Amino acid sequence: MSTRSEFLKRLESWGTQLAKAILELEEPIMEIPARTLSNTIWDEKARMLKLGPEKLHRRFLDVKEARKFMQTVLMLRLIVEAIREDVYPTIRDLYYNGKHTIVFKDPLGRTHRENTWDEQSESNAVIEDIEVATNVLREEMGVSADVKGKIVGPIVVRSQGYELDASKFGETALSLPVNVDALEIVKVEASYVLVVEKDAIFQRLVREKFWSQEGAILVTAKGMPDRATRRFIRRLNEEYKLPVYVLTDGDPYGWYIYSVYKSGSIKLSYESERLATPDAKFLGLTATDIDTYKISDNYVIAANDRDIKRAQELLRYPWFQKPEWTREINLFLKKKKKVEIEALSTHGLKFLHDYLRDKIRSKKFID
Amino acid sequence: MSTRSEFLKRLESWGTQLAKAILELEEPIMEIPARTLSNTIWDEKARMLKLGPEKLHRRFLDVKEARKFMQTVLMLRLIVEAIREDVYPTIRDLYYNGKHTIVFKDPLGRTHRENTWDEQSESNAVIEDIEVATNVLREEMGVSADVKGKIVGPIVVRSQGYELDASKFGETALSLPVNVDALEIVKVEASYVLVVEKDAIFQRLVREKFWSQEGAILVTAKGMPDRATRRFIRRLNEEYKLPVYVLTDGDPYGWYIYSVYKSGSIKLSYESERLATPDAKFLGLTATDIDTYKISDNYVIAANDRDIKRAQELLRYPWFQKPEWTREINLFLKKKKKVEIEALSTHGLKFLHDYLRDKIRSKKFID
Repeated sequence: MSTRSEFLKRLESWGTQLAKAILELEEPIMEIPARTLSNTIWDEKARMLKLGPEKLHRRFLDVKEARKFMQTVLMLRLIVEAIREDVYPTIRDLYYNGKHTIVFKDPLGRTHRENTWDEQSESNAVIEDIEVATNVLREEMGVSADVKGKIVGPIVVRSQGYELDASKFGETALSLPVNVDALEIVKVEASYVLVVEKDAIFQRLVREKFWSQEGAILVTAKGMPDRATRRFIRRLNEEYKLPVYVLTDGDPYGWYIYSVYKSGSIKLSYESERLATPDAKFLGLTATDIDTYKISDNYVIAANDRDIKRAQELLRYPWFQKPEWTREINLFLKKKKKVEIEALSTHGLKFLHDYLRDKIRSKKFID
Repeated sequence: MSTRSEFLKRLESWGTQLAKAILELEEPIMEIPARTLSNTIWDEKARMLKLGPEKLHRRFLDVKEARKFMQTVLMLRLIVEAIREDVYPTIRDLYYNGKHTIVFKDPLGRTHRENTWDEQSESNAVIEDIEVATNVLREEMGVSADVKGKIVGPIVVRSQGYELDASKFGETALSLPVNVDALEIVKVEASYVLVVEKDAIFQRLVREKFWSQEGAILVTAKGMPDRATRRFIRRLNEEYKLPVYVLTDGDPYGWYIYSVYKSGSIKLSYESERLATPDAKFLGLTATDIDTYKISDNYVIAANDRDIKRAQELLRYPWFQKPEWTREINLFLKKKKKVEIEALSTHGLKFLHDYLRDKIRSKKFID
């Protein structure tokens, strides 16, 4: 594990190389991998979304690039300062900290005012550029962000010298930190990882001691997962070879959430090698399950236009091009019906446990 | 602390009393405090929203009430069964578990089909009715729901026999359980509680060790707080006399979030005596702060129509009828400007710490 000060050196050397060019009267040029849709590639062999080889060259003397160039240098300075001052700004702090108005006169003597950036989307994009260009991640820079993930189960972790045994949390849970790579995994005695889309279902399974009966690590990130949760699950799978099962609702949104855990996301394709878990299995409800589990029409919800549109998108994604998935998505588009995890309660309040055990033991999941 | 089986008795006896009436050939009648806006009262002395004395009588033989009567008995049965089976269903599980279609013939021989309930809002309302009628809370029934709160700081709690020292969590945090009343508070060595609206700011303050420098318990519920977080803060204030400070953005939404912690909410007014913390102080940004802290126009956001509407609502709420608040809200309505916590970063990334210390030490908060 590298320390924040080691990452500081990498950021500094990137900045120094730009300064050196200027001192040598050369044009400073930044080389940054292009984070565009066209440069996002489905890597069949690695089974994840990756960034392609396309690079953009941000030139200081290119008028079209000058603004972006300035923004990148400004953000680099802010991040370097934060590390030197030992603070952990949020991405929004950095947006505010760097936002100011530049006043300048044009050759005709007219005064202009321009903001360094107007929206947080601009400053966020610059942080991402610095991540791909320097290969130092936001987490490694010590930038703070929302963290959604929480866990319980037979795992002991160490954070800043403190040992935390997630099998001894009673009805509480352990909230993941922003930078899970600084979290040392001390001991794992689990047989698998169960990722639950919904927080209330997670709470249920904690209280019903499902995880201790199964020897499973239970994780939730409440909907679309954040970077920290995805990274932690990836580590459990990679470093401890734990099978990972993802339980979501039976609708295109749930299926997409699963694919983000498994294959990565378009937006963060440059991060897939850290965040994606290609081995993750889908344990949630499928379109077929409505019949298999005899879920009556009463518990089934009619799909709306957004669901339909999303399903059509899924069909086009290469990582859904598997017979199991195309069959399920087409069945969904035909029947136009979705179903939530909680609909399993129609067979009694304990049926969820049977469902989970049956799908895992009998390998009724989708890979 | 009562156990779940003791609460079961109270629920059973409420049901038995209805059955007894029927066996004695009397009409079963439920008496339920009315959870209506008109029966929600601002209790000036207790400084919280409370439910008034109005009661509704749900009569079995009243055609208008029959559906609700049936729903209430059905839900009572589901909850009693869940406790007997030792499961912890979510409110959505109960909705599904109880949803079915009743088929009946009218006197003319025509067949009708009616659902026990159509929307979760209906089944949720019935759970709330049972809460107020029996004085057994959802948490006490063992019903699961989303939990948003997490904490760090000098406090030791015990959950199901496991002791958790929230000062020894490193960069992780302790997620609260659904039923915080079953959480035993073993030891508290804090000087105050700081409630932070935003999760990313919470992460920052954890990593910058602000809480250990201050001996403070740090809490976040990420936006509008859930019942568990509100209850836990109330307990810290009531049982340990800890001052509670709430840090939110400087906009009507942030101010309202503060008031929910302090005075309770209209929807859960029957719960205020457990959930509200009338002593809570507002530590977030005010309209005046934009001038006080010299926050330039660059970092200030123009209020939109929803902000304006919300501010006008706040002015009408009796619990905002204090000179400090009416002045601030009117200033906001005049200037139409809002400001986020992160805007303090304009004075450097460490300024947030100075701001918090200054507001607390110099009593620059609003009560």
